[in-house]
Amino acid sequence: MNRRSFMGAAGAMAVGLGLGGTALAARESAALPPPPSGTGKSLEDALRARQSQRAYADRELSDEVLSGLLWAAFGVNRSATGGRTAPSARDRQEIEVHVTRRDGHYLYDAKKHALVKQGGGDIRALTGLQGYVAAAPVNLVYVADMEKAAGSGAEEKLLLAAADTGFISQNVYLYCAVNGLATVVRAMIDTAALAVAMGLAGGRRVMLAQCVGYPKG
Amino acid sequence: MNRRSFMGAAGAMAVGLGLGGTALAARESAALPPPPSGTGKSLEDALRARQSQRAYADRELSDEVLSGLLWAAFGVNRSATGGRTAPSARDRQEIEVHVTRRDGHYLYDAKKHALVKQGGGDIRALTGLQGYVAAAPVNLVYVADMEKAAGSGAEEKLLLAAADTGFISQNVYLYCAVNGLATVVRAMIDTAALAVAMGLAGGRRVMLAQCVGYPKG
Repeated sequence: MNRRSFMGAAGAMAVGLGLGGTALAARESAALPPPPSGTGKSLEDALRARQSQRAYADRELSDEVLSGLLWAAFGVNRSATGGRTAPSARDRQEIEVHVTRRDGHYLYDAKKHALVKQGGGDIRALTGLQGYVAAAPVNLVYVADMEKAAGSGAEEKLLLAAADTGFISQNVYLYCAVNGLATVVRAMIDTAALAVAMGLAGGRRVMLAQCVGYPKG
Repeated sequence: MNRRSFMGAAGAMAVGLGLGGTALAARESAALPPPPSGTGKSLEDALRARQSQRAYADRELSDEVLSGLLWAAFGVNRSATGGRTAPSARDRQEIEVHVTRRDGHYLYDAKKHALVKQGGGDIRALTGLQGYVAAAPVNLVYVADMEKAAGSGAEEKLLLAAADTGFISQNVYLYCAVNGLATVVRAMIDTAALAVAMGLAGGRRVMLAQCVGYPKG
């Protein structure tokens, strides 16, 4: 709880000082290992095995698995153009992929393929209302930067940002399907409380969250 | 234009008579061939090749390719439960995949893996405002049945239906990436005009559309 309060205060301070971007850039960044070359399993295998699972074993994801997961989710797949593995409306790339683990909360920096530390607290339990959420070693949180988002008017912006979230989340599903991982995307979130705990600022909105781990039993 | 007017009138009539479901069930249904076993290309290959392309060759998709495409998009991948290749909020499966081609407009029936004819007109040009749209042999239109959609309140329903659309659309992207097909998902649509042309009724809403074809040149 202390850590969560700290995060909220830090976020609020960054806004107050107008330093959101600068503060973020100065945060500790840790390069991920290169994405593994993959299982070789086919796209059809992935589609056949695609499912939601809600019971997670007490087993962490290795850095290699996390690296592959995040690259699949929304990594850079064309370095010349900065193109990503998932589309976004007018290429605004407004969806941020946040990673919450036991050891803290990170933002995925796709360009550097790195994790940028946002806080050291375990906020996994805040990423969803269901009891199983905190048991998953990784809970991804998809955050839309609504100031970057395409669309005219709030409704169109929401539609586009939500679809852009779905593209990414489906990549996560398929990666999990061929890597023996369990996953479920979720919308039952106290988004106001989570935004405070994450220190979200600058028009950022929590869209969905997604558990990732190994299946239990 | 005659055909489009007919479709609009037919849709309106079905609503007026309260026969939406019955009329649909009575429509001509044509089974698709079984989905091909696939290219064997890996999920990672698909993710590496994922991109949007907007120039389409004048070449139709075979029934086999369309079959694979639609199964990948939102087919049944677990016959015992009716589970699909893409998730949906509370498993409402509220997104309809419509297929518009030169020879007409069809609804994908995932359970039967069949196309149900909705009209014989070529309404592809109405599925988007960009000039290249009508050149693509297939334009998928994602329609949300908002009466089926999960969520409390209009905003949450929209968010969930849009994310559910994104999951499906990403499957289409990845299928195209390993099958030599070009694709682009699009939001610039005169949705009111398209809904009339498609004869949409019963709280159905056009979410996004997606061109599929072979790359030009």
